[in-house]
Amino acid sequence: MLRRLCAAAGPQMSARAKVAIAARSLTYTPRTRDVQFLYEEVFHMYDHYGKLAGKDGASRENTVTKELMDALLEESSKLSTQTLFPLYEPSDTEGCKLANGVVTTPKGFKEAYKAYAEGGWVGINDPEKYGGQGLPVSVGFTTREIMSTANWSFGMYPNLSQGACQTLLKWASDELKEVYLPKLVSGEWSGTMCLTEPQCGTDLGQVKTKAEPLGDGKSYHITGTKIFISAGDHDLVDNIAHVVLARLPNSKPSTKGLSLFLVPRHVVKPDGTLEAKKNVECIGVEKKMGIKGSATSQLSFDNSVGYLIGSESEGMKEMFTYMNAARMGCGMQGVSHAELAFQNSLRYARERRSMRALSGTKEPEKPADTIICHANVRSNILFSKAVAEGGRALIVDVSRMLDLHFAAPTPEAAAKLDNEIGFYTPIAKGCLTEWGFEAASRSLQVWGGHGYINGNGMEQILRDSRIGTLYEGTTGVQAMDFIGRKVLSSKGGNQAKRFGQRVNKLARAHLFSSGPLGSYGRHLWLMQKQWRIATMKIGFMAQKNHDAVAAASEDFLMYSGYLTLGYYWLRMAEAAQKKVAAGQDPDGFYQAKLDTCEYVFTRVLPRADAHYKMMQEPPALCAYKQENWDIQ
Amino acid sequence: MLRRLCAAAGPQMSARAKVAIAARSLTYTPRTRDVQFLYEEVFHMYDHYGKLAGKDGASRENTVTKELMDALLEESSKLSTQTLFPLYEPSDTEGCKLANGVVTTPKGFKEAYKAYAEGGWVGINDPEKYGGQGLPVSVGFTTREIMSTANWSFGMYPNLSQGACQTLLKWASDELKEVYLPKLVSGEWSGTMCLTEPQCGTDLGQVKTKAEPLGDGKSYHITGTKIFISAGDHDLVDNIAHVVLARLPNSKPSTKGLSLFLVPRHVVKPDGTLEAKKNVECIGVEKKMGIKGSATSQLSFDNSVGYLIGSESEGMKEMFTYMNAARMGCGMQGVSHAELAFQNSLRYARERRSMRALSGTKEPEKPADTIICHANVRSNILFSKAVAEGGRALIVDVSRMLDLHFAAPTPEAAAKLDNEIGFYTPIAKGCLTEWGFEAASRSLQVWGGHGYINGNGMEQILRDSRIGTLYEGTTGVQAMDFIGRKVLSSKGGNQAKRFGQRVNKLARAHLFSSGPLGSYGRHLWLMQKQWRIATMKIGFMAQKNHDAVAAASEDFLMYSGYLTLGYYWLRMAEAAQKKVAAGQDPDGFYQAKLDTCEYVFTRVLPRADAHYKMMQEPPALCAYKQENWDIQ
Repeated sequence: MLRRLCAAAGPQMSARAKVAIAARSLTYTPRTRDVQFLYEEVFHMYDHYGKLAGKDGASRENTVTKELMDALLEESSKLSTQTLFPLYEPSDTEGCKLANGVVTTPKGFKEAYKAYAEGGWVGINDPEKYGGQGLPVSVGFTTREIMSTANWSFGMYPNLSQGACQTLLKWASDELKEVYLPKLVSGEWSGTMCLTEPQCGTDLGQVKTKAEPLGDGKSYHITGTKIFISAGDHDLVDNIAHVVLARLPNSKPSTKGLSLFLVPRHVVKPDGTLEAKKNVECIGVEKKMGIKGSATSQLSFDNSVGYLIGSESEGMKEMFTYMNAARMGCGMQGVSHAELAFQNSLRYARERRSMRALSGTKEPEKPADTIICHANVRSNILFSKAVAEGGRALIVDVSRMLDLHFAAPTPEAAAKLDNEIGFYTPIAKGCLTEWGFEAASRSLQVWGGHGYINGNGMEQILRDSRIGTLYEGTTGVQAMDFIGRKVLSSKGGNQAKRFGQRVNKLARAHLFSSGPLGSYGRHLWLMQKQWRIATMKIGFMAQKNHDAVAAASEDFLMYSGYLTLGYYWLRMAEAAQKKVAAGQDPDGFYQAKLDTCEYVFTRVLPRADAHYKMMQEPPALCAYKQENWDIQ
Repeated sequence: MLRRLCAAAGPQMSARAKVAIAARSLTYTPRTRDVQFLYEEVFHMYDHYGKLAGKDGASRENTVTKELMDALLEESSKLSTQTLFPLYEPSDTEGCKLANGVVTTPKGFKEAYKAYAEGGWVGINDPEKYGGQGLPVSVGFTTREIMSTANWSFGMYPNLSQGACQTLLKWASDELKEVYLPKLVSGEWSGTMCLTEPQCGTDLGQVKTKAEPLGDGKSYHITGTKIFISAGDHDLVDNIAHVVLARLPNSKPSTKGLSLFLVPRHVVKPDGTLEAKKNVECIGVEKKMGIKGSATSQLSFDNSVGYLIGSESEGMKEMFTYMNAARMGCGMQGVSHAELAFQNSLRYARERRSMRALSGTKEPEKPADTIICHANVRSNILFSKAVAEGGRALIVDVSRMLDLHFAAPTPEAAAKLDNEIGFYTPIAKGCLTEWGFEAASRSLQVWGGHGYINGNGMEQILRDSRIGTLYEGTTGVQAMDFIGRKVLSSKGGNQAKRFGQRVNKLARAHLFSSGPLGSYGRHLWLMQKQWRIATMKIGFMAQKNHDAVAAASEDFLMYSGYLTLGYYWLRMAEAAQKKVAAGQDPDGFYQAKLDTCEYVFTRVLPRADAHYKMMQEPPALCAYKQENWDIQ
């Protein structure tokens, strides 16, 4: 021991120190037990799947049993830890490259994609008719979370492809479906959604890409530039089916004049083979802050051959079909990055030693206590844990609703569920990505200066997570969608009331309990009461001043998010409490749930108070004369 | 016009779009007018300098007049915009390189450093005796802020050097001073502070670097490894004076056994020339998330010749002498990055067009309104403005106290001021760096997906700002220092009471006013009242459970930060209100202050409520059994 200490103090230290610092890399353990807890004890998913069997409109015919699900969890975990996660850090260093018109993904992605596709993961939710697994959406969300946490950049290739695939499934002609769907479902080809242009992202009314009919009633020439296209070009597949928003001649100059086209990278010849010449050129791959393994492409369409999907000028409606699912997928990113941040800040805090615990020395024989003994460090770790596990619960629950939506017996039932899902979507997208970024930052903080170093992984998680609040509509856009369309609008199906009742029902069940759950119930009851009042107030303000809605929107979204987080944590605490009370908690799993729930109610939810106050302020800041802001 | 639109929609667009995206780069205008406002109308700095003249213990003999200060602002602005800022983005791409033991800084740094040193900026606060400008500390802080905002990485070289310089000034023998100070003051050489080792940063009791006396009563052999040394090695100067914390033989195994040594990169020969051989080797330069132009070095000391500074085993005390100033310098980083973020989100929001203003279309002839019309966007911009200008006020005020400290007529007077400065220091370091990072993130958010792209600058500001909460003591460390040493400890000179009274006095002056300032006064009065109550409560909790202090510390620090931010904004609003009321606001400068103050009180300070609640929670989270946290 002494020899080692002496050696460490001597010049030999140099090399060892360098190694010690350089060799830190991230670890990841898929949370299969946590998923089982949610599936079995909180949301009773196997009852749900039993009721679902045979009812799914998209022909998802397999009943999911615990045995099947456990096997899926095991397989997705295996692929995650053995194949995807080892590529996570190298892919950040390497990034994607564009040379001579060819986009190269990071080393190992090709083989990993092959394994992913061969495992049937690409088409897990797609109809068996086209070669898919026909499994419910929720199963896809859960297994995708496990795999995307291992490597978010990688996951974007197959996951984004599903956006195109689902759009074709719903709107394309049988002719197009037969050519493209089997290939997209198997993963042999991939797909993209091409919306954004240099001058517009959110405001798609400004889209300029034009489509000229070729006279055969189905083919068009597409011309324009699309940017920020995730998985827009890459070397993982032979062909890419771009779903492109473009404008027909003489169409309305707004979003109402947009139509949707399928534009393949290589035109498919009548015999099914591909034309060698490219139909779409990749003219740039963005260098980004993070998710560097994901090829964010600039695509040039230059009289590219395309095919109308669905009807003329119905592009926006068709494109929005799968927007909820896509945005829920973004919300999942918050969970994924919070999870990775949590696991690695916890590990570091158990290893790193600094100072003594304030409550008294823990390990006097060591030079210092581990930093997990410090309350501030624990608080930072717990935040990530709270977001990861709470967010996971939200996503499982909403993906359960998506299952029901796809299986809805009537269009009316489907529309009702669509409204309900639409209510939770901006909460999941907006709040989970904001919290995921915060979790990444607070977990980096646990590492101190070491968290700031490239190659230790924590700063990569932070950089990767930052995109979450930007793409698929910024947090501000989610906030406006939420308050405007989902809460205040009469078209939202009165979801605000339904949600309030749902929270109220849970809260009231605990209102008069003694013990922690009682206090959480009362806390939640008060929050939902305040939420209802604030909703009315903002509604009144909006009648006088439209800007009031905008000014309140983000605070309102965040308040709703904390309320939702509290709701799911209380649901989890209910289930955990039963086991703890019955003495069935040998490894402390359930106690950790209760502890984290306490953290959420005492150290996270009080933030909602600030949002409550701020969202009721008159929208004075909207009146600011921007000309006063000159920088001087 | 039409031709241009058509061309833009066609294939030519590709190239133009690429240029449009790639060509965005940051802009920066030094805020000289804002400084003048603070100096002349808020803090009456020229009266202060008048009283200071000739009283400064560190021989700062120049009286600072408005004429001099304006000239300094002009010169520092010129250097910033012409020399330092153009290197900001390129230095991020290029970074620092280590090859064959030589560290190369980014292109242009050498020339910029020469201009900086020749301008006399390095030794702006140093005694004229050693070639410095002898100007008050506050002048140094203000001009440094202007220049560091232009290029934070660059600023670290001369600024960190001052840490070493000031330590030598205070503690070194005349012999060492005569050799080193003239060179450090002129900038011919630079200096570092070498504290951190691989196994310890905050917990310096774990320092292992050893010092062996060579028998001449002043020379030692220093052996060990230091990491994370800012400006630890570089090509801007001929020699570097490292101030190194090390352990003499048979010293106590805690911080009490540490001494301070001066270890030059090249030993200075008796004739003043340098030995060619290196006395200290740089064995690594960290690849970091940001501030890539700053060389964060790993240094190997291997029987390196060093000289004792001050007394044996007094290293910690000596090192802490200038800790307040160093930490205030970190706080300045929050201001700098918030400022840069503000200016560039404002500019983008005035150019970028998306959707229509909710309050009604602003520019019907354009395809969309500028995004500054959206309340959510304005809120994000205003946050950065609030932090930059409020933080600047805090820093000017504390640097004013530092002036008084250096000019204190007696050690008692100096100690009293040191306590007062010590109280504000963790607030500035802790809160301003947290807010600076948030400002960078919210300003990036204004840019949407374009903010995430390398080369557009916003993500660089975010990455650069992230280090602020880590170095010179993490936010958690600041929080513990604040509540433990500065507030609850009897050794802190009762600063909490003084601070409470100071806020109270300002608040009471507006308590019964009608109009906005009255409501701000009442808001602030309530906050300081709550602050006093919470302080007592935490004190009581601490008596029962030491962990209570730790658990409450960061919320307490942030609450105190918001209270401080509100205090300085009300001070600024007072001054601005006078001008607005007198009709002396031709360009809206003062109205913008009032508007931003309203934003601060209605949309920022309510967050303090959440911290108020959380810091009074019993420290249950400290009791968590970490063994329950196993990842499963």
